[in-house]
Amino acid sequence: MDEKTIKMRSRAIGRNMRANGIDCMVVVGGENVRYITGFTGDDSWAVFAGRTVYLVTDSRYTEQAEQECAGCRIIEREGTMIKTVAKIITKYKNAKMVGVEDSCPVGVYKKLQRAVGRKVKPVSGIIEKIREYKEPAEINAISKAAKIAWAGLSRMLNQLKAGMSESEAAGLLDLYIRKAGSTNSFETIVAFGANGSRPHHQPGRKKLRTNDTILIDFGATYKGYCCDMTRCFAFGKAPAVYHKIHSAVLEAQQAAIRTIRDGVKTTAVDSAAREVLAKYNLPIYSHGTGHGLGLAVHESPNISKVDKGKLKAGQVVTIEPGVYMPGKLGIRIEDDILVTKTGCRVLSKNNPPGLSSSEIKILKSR
Amino acid sequence: MDEKTIKMRSRAIGRNMRANGIDCMVVVGGENVRYITGFTGDDSWAVFAGRTVYLVTDSRYTEQAEQECAGCRIIEREGTMIKTVAKIITKYKNAKMVGVEDSCPVGVYKKLQRAVGRKVKPVSGIIEKIREYKEPAEINAISKAAKIAWAGLSRMLNQLKAGMSESEAAGLLDLYIRKAGSTNSFETIVAFGANGSRPHHQPGRKKLRTNDTILIDFGATYKGYCCDMTRCFAFGKAPAVYHKIHSAVLEAQQAAIRTIRDGVKTTAVDSAAREVLAKYNLPIYSHGTGHGLGLAVHESPNISKVDKGKLKAGQVVTIEPGVYMPGKLGIRIEDDILVTKTGCRVLSKNNPPGLSSSEIKILKSR
Repeated sequence: MDEKTIKMRSRAIGRNMRANGIDCMVVVGGENVRYITGFTGDDSWAVFAGRTVYLVTDSRYTEQAEQECAGCRIIEREGTMIKTVAKIITKYKNAKMVGVEDSCPVGVYKKLQRAVGRKVKPVSGIIEKIREYKEPAEINAISKAAKIAWAGLSRMLNQLKAGMSESEAAGLLDLYIRKAGSTNSFETIVAFGANGSRPHHQPGRKKLRTNDTILIDFGATYKGYCCDMTRCFAFGKAPAVYHKIHSAVLEAQQAAIRTIRDGVKTTAVDSAAREVLAKYNLPIYSHGTGHGLGLAVHESPNISKVDKGKLKAGQVVTIEPGVYMPGKLGIRIEDDILVTKTGCRVLSKNNPPGLSSSEIKILKSR
Repeated sequence: MDEKTIKMRSRAIGRNMRANGIDCMVVVGGENVRYITGFTGDDSWAVFAGRTVYLVTDSRYTEQAEQECAGCRIIEREGTMIKTVAKIITKYKNAKMVGVEDSCPVGVYKKLQRAVGRKVKPVSGIIEKIREYKEPAEINAISKAAKIAWAGLSRMLNQLKAGMSESEAAGLLDLYIRKAGSTNSFETIVAFGANGSRPHHQPGRKKLRTNDTILIDFGATYKGYCCDMTRCFAFGKAPAVYHKIHSAVLEAQQAAIRTIRDGVKTTAVDSAAREVLAKYNLPIYSHGTGHGLGLAVHESPNISKVDKGKLKAGQVVTIEPGVYMPGKLGIRIEDDILVTKTGCRVLSKNNPPGLSSSEIKILKSR
């Protein structure tokens, strides 16, 4: 990553560190390491100390780090990660309180605590709060990821055949996403018929039959940035009730999207969707209405009944209400939305014709 | 999982708990939860208290847990995971020291410590040490996973074409593994030509050309159990040096496998492989020679220069020496081996004809 971006991000993170009373921070989470260094490899940590961002990696990755992390000090560790990090921190005599990300396994944390010989405390949200606000390049990357995902979905739908299993359909979609040089942003969900009622369904051996309904929750990545969309289809004819509930879910999603602008309470966005379903006497989903997304497919802010807070311009969130009737059906519609000063922009709208959320695509049963 | 298996496993784990001075244990790692309860869903913990194994899950999974975990007490949590677990432990007044797996994020650990109101300490290896010894059904599952993986590889190799990218080839293999109703045991590595020299290469846009060499490191799962194999191929003709080094790596692998039996030092297995490569003046790999595998694709015991210990009958390990020449080539051969009283048994030997490790398969270039 270029020096300018690293400087800008680390200034903002430095402010959060001071507000949390820490002078030095150990970053262990892969997406946070990537965010502040640009490094895309594994098994590496970052350390904020003084005004310097260190990337601590090993010999497998040194060459890659030199290409990716222009603005960082790259340390190729020889001993353990913990000893190397402790050595870096020891040099900063003014660092009284060291923060360690609270996602760090407690076993590693305790070893680090002993090795560092300073006061150490777990911290959270320091980088995540900055990551909520997307820079233009990040917004473009999410849109690009959505474009790749839609194209993959479109190709997969053309290959769907009666007798194909959920698992195979998911594998085909994944293959097309990989053919585009991308990767899945999370494990693809393909649910046939009543399986759609399980929000975290794992694609299985169930086979597609004529007139089955299909729920697909999927995403791709571009330059590490994730998209996350859900659409529903009918493989032939869907019953009238399915069309009716789909319209209600769509109305709920659109109602929530219409509320989005800088400063709106997340609970207001959440209830906008739920109120529409309540109006139709439909069961209300137990999951949240949406979540932030970026380098991770789930990040802050959350949009739910319980998460307090206001949306701010620059955040990107999903909006994904659903109706679930176990043993009968499940319908969810999900898009990715950028919050702006005056409203919002749907980043996942690059639908190929016929994949718009405004209709259930009726697939030709083969 | 049936009551008998849970009882047998939990008796062994109970002995390890007492040896570690804990009366009660909180299990947060997915594979450990599965091992002691049989539960295959997500977001659930297990608690050992008294003679009872609790599975703490939420409403999404209660039905599934009832089917899968006959021998457990299933708790559907309503509040947070931490509060529910604390409530269970509170009932056991004699539990003075509570162990929490040290893979638990430190933030969660600290909250749990406050909520439980007892002495709490991080523990490790308590379940992992038991998991090292595979029951007959576990050994069968690993063999079955290998069979599925070989069949997928065979189909993929038949589809390889000049111009296909590494990523696409990996995606095809993954698709065939899914078509068999299985999943990948880890992210497939497909490396063309010199990319094989990077042990953790991520398949990318590089396209297959006639006379390229190919390294594929891959695996499938069966009933949650993983296999992990590596083979090398030539897409047309491979240079003589590639054949020569491949023979040396194979000789190194066979030498290591020949040493395996109950009671052998892991360092002796490790050096058996390295000595063969040294004899040919080939560069010595910096990774370990092997690792345990089961519900996780990497588990104890490790076979390396630094890990002390002896192999024991019932353990299943990989043996995977390699030769890496950056910018030139990479060759690794990997199989999965069961340690027995008198020797060992190769579980990954169900090769379709032509995929035996004893030769480089020469693929017809298309």
